[in-house]
Amino acid sequence: MGAVTTDNSVDRADRVPKQDRSRATRQRLLEAAVACLAEHGWAGSTVSVVAERAGVSRGAAQHHFPTREDLFTAAVEYVAEERSTALRALFPQGAAGDRRAVVAALVDLYTGPLFRAALHLWVAASNEDQLRPRVTELEARVGRETHRIAVDLLAADESRPGVRETVQGLLDMARGLGLANLLTDDGGRREGVVAQWAALLDEALD
Amino acid sequence: MGAVTTDNSVDRADRVPKQDRSRATRQRLLEAAVACLAEHGWAGSTVSVVAERAGVSRGAAQHHFPTREDLFTAAVEYVAEERSTALRALFPQGAAGDRRAVVAALVDLYTGPLFRAALHLWVAASNEDQLRPRVTELEARVGRETHRIAVDLLAADESRPGVRETVQGLLDMARGLGLANLLTDDGGRREGVVAQWAALLDEALD
Repeated sequence: MGAVTTDNSVDRADRVPKQDRSRATRQRLLEAAVACLAEHGWAGSTVSVVAERAGVSRGAAQHHFPTREDLFTAAVEYVAEERSTALRALFPQGAAGDRRAVVAALVDLYTGPLFRAALHLWVAASNEDQLRPRVTELEARVGRETHRIAVDLLAADESRPGVRETVQGLLDMARGLGLANLLTDDGGRREGVVAQWAALLDEALD
Repeated sequence: MGAVTTDNSVDRADRVPKQDRSRATRQRLLEAAVACLAEHGWAGSTVSVVAERAGVSRGAAQHHFPTREDLFTAAVEYVAEERSTALRALFPQGAAGDRRAVVAALVDLYTGPLFRAALHLWVAASNEDQLRPRVTELEARVGRETHRIAVDLLAADESRPGVRETVQGLLDMARGLGLANLLTDDGGRREGVVAQWAALLDEALD
């Protein structure tokens, strides 16, 4: 964050950087929370651990996120939105004839730290009652948005029978590939699967 | 377990039921371990909890499985083998023209308590060093066997280019569908995806 360079209003100079600071702190906490979940899982992820990682006091962290559930569901949602925006930016003209590149980019959504973090959150939610409704709702929202992006980028015509289910199956496959990458680097096998199914998908969508 | 009905050899009468008893105890422990993992996750799954659930003393449980890792990896492997055998038995003549039924049965492998238990084990292994190599090796072995069954039942000719990757992608999709079913009952959506992808697969394999 830069130093304050305007002094035409003490009030404004005082207010704006405070908002900036607050936003930057929030963002640091969210990014630290996803990294923490991905590395240590739900059991090892507390507000204190994340605050320390983000270089923020525990009190400041709790000001932004009163509960552990607030922090981690907000974190997964925030990073998922960042990734969606980045994905759309990668293909400003949509698939433009290169569906294989789009399929590869969609699959990439499920192989990084975000997917790993989300997976820990889902699995924890399946056993913890206070987490479950929050994560279920989050998953539905992120899933709908990812589906929308996939349909747009693949130039898929969902008014045709079967097209919706074809795109859904592709995203299920991407999620399954993410899971297969959890314990070992599955990149070589994944590349072959993506190439083959991108070709099948191309036929199915035209 | 039946009573001892032969008395022509005290030695034999004494030995056989003991082996039976031991095998039955082992099996009860393995089944209880998978149910426990599926319901309570890794953190809530200890040898003591499983022994109690199986109605076996903690000492007897530890005689069969000296460590927690031994018990839970053996349990997931045992139940996976049981399911593989049951799946082959469902289609004694292979696909016999009904690939859609085979796809549905393959997907079913990933939506029950076994998948839920395996998922908890995988996720725990991603953060626990003493569990990780065991689970990685187990996952590879079970994955190879499931692939072999899928190829057989689908009558897929892997000597043709792309067929291997087509079958792999199907199993990745099945795994992703299992994950989507973790927090909510995803059966309705899943049915549509399975029908559509079975049709795509049918075209791709012929």
